[in-house]
Amino acid sequence: MFDSKEHSHRRLNVLTGEWVQVSPHRSKRPWQGQVEKLEQERRPEHDPNCYLCAGNERIGGERNPDYKDTFVFTNDFAALQGDIPSGGESTGLLQSKSERGLCKVICFSPRHDLTIPEMDVDGIEKVVELWVEQCKEIGAIDYINHIQIFENKGSVMGCSNPHPHGQIWAQESIPVEPMKKQFQQEKYRLDHKTDLLEDYIQQELAAKERVLFENEHMVVLIPYWAVWPFEAMILPKRRMAQIIEMTAEERRAFAEAYQHLTIKYDNLFETSFPYSAGIHQAPYDNREHPEWHWHMSFYPPLLRSATVKKFMVGYEMFANPQRDITAEFAAQRLRDLPAVHYAQSGN
Amino acid sequence: MFDSKEHSHRRLNVLTGEWVQVSPHRSKRPWQGQVEKLEQERRPEHDPNCYLCAGNERIGGERNPDYKDTFVFTNDFAALQGDIPSGGESTGLLQSKSERGLCKVICFSPRHDLTIPEMDVDGIEKVVELWVEQCKEIGAIDYINHIQIFENKGSVMGCSNPHPHGQIWAQESIPVEPMKKQFQQEKYRLDHKTDLLEDYIQQELAAKERVLFENEHMVVLIPYWAVWPFEAMILPKRRMAQIIEMTAEERRAFAEAYQHLTIKYDNLFETSFPYSAGIHQAPYDNREHPEWHWHMSFYPPLLRSATVKKFMVGYEMFANPQRDITAEFAAQRLRDLPAVHYAQSGN
Ligand SMILES: O=P(O)(O)O[C@H]1O[C@H](CO)[C@@H](O)[C@H](O)[C@H]1O
Ligand SMILES: O=P(O)(O)O[C@H]1O[C@H](CO)[C@@H](O)[C@H](O)[C@H]1O
Repeated sequence: MFDSKEHSHRRLNVLTGEWVQVSPHRSKRPWQGQVEKLEQERRPEHDPNCYLCAGNERIGGERNPDYKDTFVFTNDFAALQGDIPSGGESTGLLQSKSERGLCKVICFSPRHDLTIPEMDVDGIEKVVELWVEQCKEIGAIDYINHIQIFENKGSVMGCSNPHPHGQIWAQESIPVEPMKKQFQQEKYRLDHKTDLLEDYIQQELAAKERVLFENEHMVVLIPYWAVWPFEAMILPKRRMAQIIEMTAEERRAFAEAYQHLTIKYDNLFETSFPYSAGIHQAPYDNREHPEWHWHMSFYPPLLRSATVKKFMVGYEMFANPQRDITAEFAAQRLRDLPAVHYAQSGN
Repeated sequence: MFDSKEHSHRRLNVLTGEWVQVSPHRSKRPWQGQVEKLEQERRPEHDPNCYLCAGNERIGGERNPDYKDTFVFTNDFAALQGDIPSGGESTGLLQSKSERGLCKVICFSPRHDLTIPEMDVDGIEKVVELWVEQCKEIGAIDYINHIQIFENKGSVMGCSNPHPHGQIWAQESIPVEPMKKQFQQEKYRLDHKTDLLEDYIQQELAAKERVLFENEHMVVLIPYWAVWPFEAMILPKRRMAQIIEMTAEERRAFAEAYQHLTIKYDNLFETSFPYSAGIHQAPYDNREHPEWHWHMSFYPPLLRSATVKKFMVGYEMFANPQRDITAEFAAQRLRDLPAVHYAQSGN
C-alpha cells in the first residue's frame, strides 16, 4: 500500500499550479556537507555602528531619527528606481522593458538586540500597522501595481544587518510568483464560485494535522504542498484581497499569529531561526480583485539542526522543488514545542 | 534616454516565458553580509575516507571497483524510488500522487583532487559519453519519462563531497522547469515554423556581445535573460532533442566547450568556482519531440569575489528572480580572462 510517510510522491500546490517532489524516506541520509555558522552572540540594545539604529548615520549620509517603535526609509541602494526613462529592447528573441519601482527598509524596533519572536504583541502590531499604512501610501502612486513586503532574517538568508528589519519593493509589473497565484485563484473562482483559500482553510481545519495555531481571525498552518522543510503560512479566515482591508481586531490577531509561529521556529533548534517571509496580496491597480485572498508565507532553510540547512540546488533548480520530510511531520514537530520563547522561559 | 547599463528593467526568458528583474546600478552596494569559506586546500589524488574514490567502501557497505575513468552507481540515499506501490490522495484541494524514479551518482574521474576544469578534454569526453550511455539505458526503462543530469559543485551548492561527481535523477513525470521550456519551444515552433534556440543562436552570434566561445558544433553564451550573476549556457548549433543524438564529433566539441567555460569560471576569482549545472532535453517518452533543442545551463552563485555570493531570497523567492549586473557585463568579464586554468598556467 502506498504510504506518504515512506514513499516518494508529488503534491500539487493549488496556489501556483506547480508540483513539489516529496522524498520522506530521504531524511535518514547522513550529512557530510556544509554547516552554517551559529549566530549566538548577544547583541547590545543599541549599536553605534549599525546604520539602522536610532540616531545613527546611514551610508548615504542621512541620520536616522530617534524613533521609538518602527521606522521606514527609502533604501539607499534601491534595486528599483522610480525616475528612469521608459524604454527597452524588442529585437527578435531579445525582449526587455524598463521597470519603475521603489525600495524601502522598515525597522521593526529601535532595539538592535530583538527579533520578531522576541518582541511583544504590541510591538509586532506596530509593524503590521506600518505595513498597512505603507501599502495605502505606495498603492496610491500612479505607476505602482505590485507591492512586495518581505523580510530576510539571518545571514544565511542574505541578511546583512541583524537589526530587526524588513523591506518593501514596489513596482509597475506583476512579478512571476504573485502572477501564478492570481491565475490559479481566478480560475478556481470561475470554476467553483467559491474562494480557493477559504475552501482550503476549511479542509485544513477539519483535517487538523497541518494546523499549528488558530485564533478568531487567523490560521497558521504548514501547507500541504510546502517546499521548505518548515515552510508555513498565516492566513486570514475571511477573504480579503489586500492587507489594508484588515480591521483593528484582525491586525491584532495577525500580530498574535505572527508571534506564535516565529516563537515556535526559534524553539525548534533553540536558535534565532532564519527565514525569508513575504506577503502575497492583490495588485494595487485600482481594480477589484474578488479572486485574491492575501496571505503571508515563511520559507526557512534549516532542516536538521541550527547548522544544517536544505540546499535547493541542482535537481531543485533544473527540475522541481524537492523536500525530505513531510508537511505533516514538520507540523507535528512544531506543534509539540512550547509556545513561550526558549530564551524567555526562565529555565 | 533609457540605458540598460544604468536603469532597472525586466528581460524575458523566451525559454520559460518568465521575466527576470535586472538592477545594474545595484552592484555598487557595499556588502556587510555573509561571506563564504574559501575551499583552497590541496586534496590528495586518493582519499581513503572518500566513499567515491576507487576501491573504497560506500555507506551501504558496497565497495567501489578500481575504476580508471568514470564510474556510475545507484545513489545509496535515492530521493526517488522505483519499487513503490502507486497511490496518492485526491480529496478536494489535497492532491498528491506517488512518483517512481531512480537516482544515480556519476564519478567524473578516479582522481579525488580534480574538477572538470582541471581535467583534459579526453577525460571530459568520457563523462559526456557516460551521460549518453546512461540516457540510452535509463530512457529505455518503461516508466521513465524525464532524465535530469546535474552537478552540484562546491559546498556552497550543497555538495557534500569534493570528489568530482554529478548525478542523474530520472522519473515518471515531467518536472516543472523542463515543462515550461517544452511549452515555450512548442509554441514558438507552431507560431514561427522554425526552432526557437536555432533562431536565438543566430541572433547571439550576430550580436556577439554575450558569446563566450564557439567551435564547429557548439556555442557558449550568457543568455540575455540570465538570472545568476555569471549564468551561462552551452548549446549545440543544430537542433537535437536529446543528447543521445550527438555524433562522436559533437561529443568532442561539447567536451571542449564544457572545459572552456569552466576554466573561465575558475579564472574569474582564481578559485574553484561553485555552480549547479544541468542538462535540459526532450522527455524519454517514446514520442517525437521536434520542438526540443537540448542545452546545458550553469547557475553559479558567486557575485563579487570568491567569498561573496548572490542571495536569491526574499524578493527573489516571493516576487521575481533579480540580478545586479547585466548579462553583457558578465560576458565581457569572462571573455577577458585567459583560457588556460590559473593553477596550470605556470605563473
Ligand atoms: O544528493 P546530495 O548531493 O547528497 O544532495 C544535494 O543535492 C540534492 C539534489 O539537488 C539536493 O536535494 C540536496 O539538498 C543537496 O544537498
Ligand atoms: O537588500 P539587501 O538586504 O541588502 O539584500 C538581500 O535581499 C535582497 C532582496 O531579496 C536580495 O536581492 C539580496 O541578494 C540579498 O542580499
